[in-house]
Amino acid sequence: MEPEEKYFSNITNRERAIFEGAITMGALFHQFVGTPVNSDTVKSLEKAIEDAMSVQPCVSSVEVVIDREILEEISNEFDYVSLSGEMLDVKVTTVCSDKQALIRLKFISELNYPLMYVEDVD
Amino acid sequence: MEPEEKYFSNITNRERAIFEGAITMGALFHQFVGTPVNSDTVKSLEKAIEDAMSVQPCVSSVEVVIDREILEEISNEFDYVSLSGEMLDVKVTTVCSDKQALIRLKFISELNYPLMYVEDVD
Amino acid sequence: MEPEEKYFSNITNRERAIFEGAITMGALFHQFVGTPVNSDTVKSLEKAIEDAMSVQPCVSSVEVVIDREILEEISNEFDYVSLSGEMLDVKVTTVCSDKQALIRLKFISELNYPLMYVEDVD
Amino acid sequence: MEPEEKYFSNITNRERAIFEGAITMGALFHQFVGTPVNSDTVKSLEKAIEDAMSVQPCVSSVEVVIDREILEEISNEFDYVSLSGEMLDVKVTTVCSDKQALIRLKFISELNYPLMYVEDVD
Repeated sequence: MEPEEKYFSNITNRERAIFEGAITMGALFHQFVGTPVNSDTVKSLEKAIEDAMSVQPCVSSVEVVIDREILEEISNEFDYVSLSGEMLDVKVTTVCSDKQALIRLKFISELNYPLMYVEDVD
Repeated sequence: MEPEEKYFSNITNRERAIFEGAITMGALFHQFVGTPVNSDTVKSLEKAIEDAMSVQPCVSSVEVVIDREILEEISNEFDYVSLSGEMLDVKVTTVCSDKQALIRLKFISELNYPLMYVEDVD
Repeated sequence: MEPEEKYFSNITNRERAIFEGAITMGALFHQFVGTPVNSDTVKSLEKAIEDAMSVQPCVSSVEVVIDREILEEISNEFDYVSLSGEMLDVKVTTVCSDKQALIRLKFISELNYPLMYVEDVD
Repeated sequence: MEPEEKYFSNITNRERAIFEGAITMGALFHQFVGTPVNSDTVKSLEKAIEDAMSVQPCVSSVEVVIDREILEEISNEFDYVSLSGEMLDVKVTTVCSDKQALIRLKFISELNYPLMYVEDVD
């Protein structure tokens, strides 16, 4: 048993997959919201977010898509915006032993809110 | 049913309590790590972190303790440090319907790591 | 001479007042943008931002006003928003020896941009 | 005259070069400190920081070096650390009309502090 596993003996593998994915999603949002971004820099930012969040416990993959339309419509002379939750569509996949979870961050128009939810779980 | 509830129909109340607490803990860490802090400002920072994270979905209370010893031992002439994970001891309590979870962030010496884990859950 | 002063011997006191105020303003924006906030928590967040940024070198005072109107108009069921640059009106005053600078962050409608500029300097 | 220039008519080009470089450095530090990083992800993080901060006003180039030694010495089973100021060596070059400034962030051992200073200015 890994030393840290005793801290997780009170939850199931499915629950830990959900737990670690949720931490990663909260972390991702609050680490990177506010970052300056435009059409030229969006790709390297997506890749860095994916790479950074992939090192977290139990995370097997991270896919980040930043809304290009918003970037193309920038209407100030400074030619960039601060990354906001509305611009993000993110999938974090976690694996804990035999269980897998897919956590999603997506702006939901009817809620007017960038929602984090469990899109799929074993 | 609240409009957002359909996004959570695939997990149990216990799982959602864990999910929302984990998001909040990841968010808290990555929002506030790096904040300048010293013995004079530590109280207002603790309170602001508690208040800010209490507004997140399902969160019923947040307790933040920043290590005073580290602040008292600051050994540079600038008289402050950047908040780091090692300095944080945090409890986030979430309630989802009839289920409650207590998520903890604590520096674990034997792991040399600020661990987030589920300390208690119904 | 303080040990750090040799690093600033190539600029004037007026320039250092501007320099340190600008660092503090950039720091403030990127540390706190993204923080969850609503009408109940806005005061403690303003105070914590003021306290945190006041510890930086040469900073003599920080005044933070977060736009209440935006908070009152929150139109989602989650009852909070993420702090954004558009909501912030900030004054950072720095003193370097006999020189003082007032750095301002303010959303400028005609620029559609939260601008940082030197509002006043000796 | 660009619309924003009236906000800078009270400072010289040299001062604005210093001002914008300082904002960018403060922003960079507080946006990215806390990001998970290890030897595998360090390159994409360096590039994303450089790209993101290059879009800020007057910034002509950004060079970021994250200390590899610290990453190689990670002594926990999670195999990553949170980016801290101690790990960063950054050069931000700004140009304002005929004036250029080089702002540096570097950990200074004798100060035990990650110092931001003006390394060179016209």
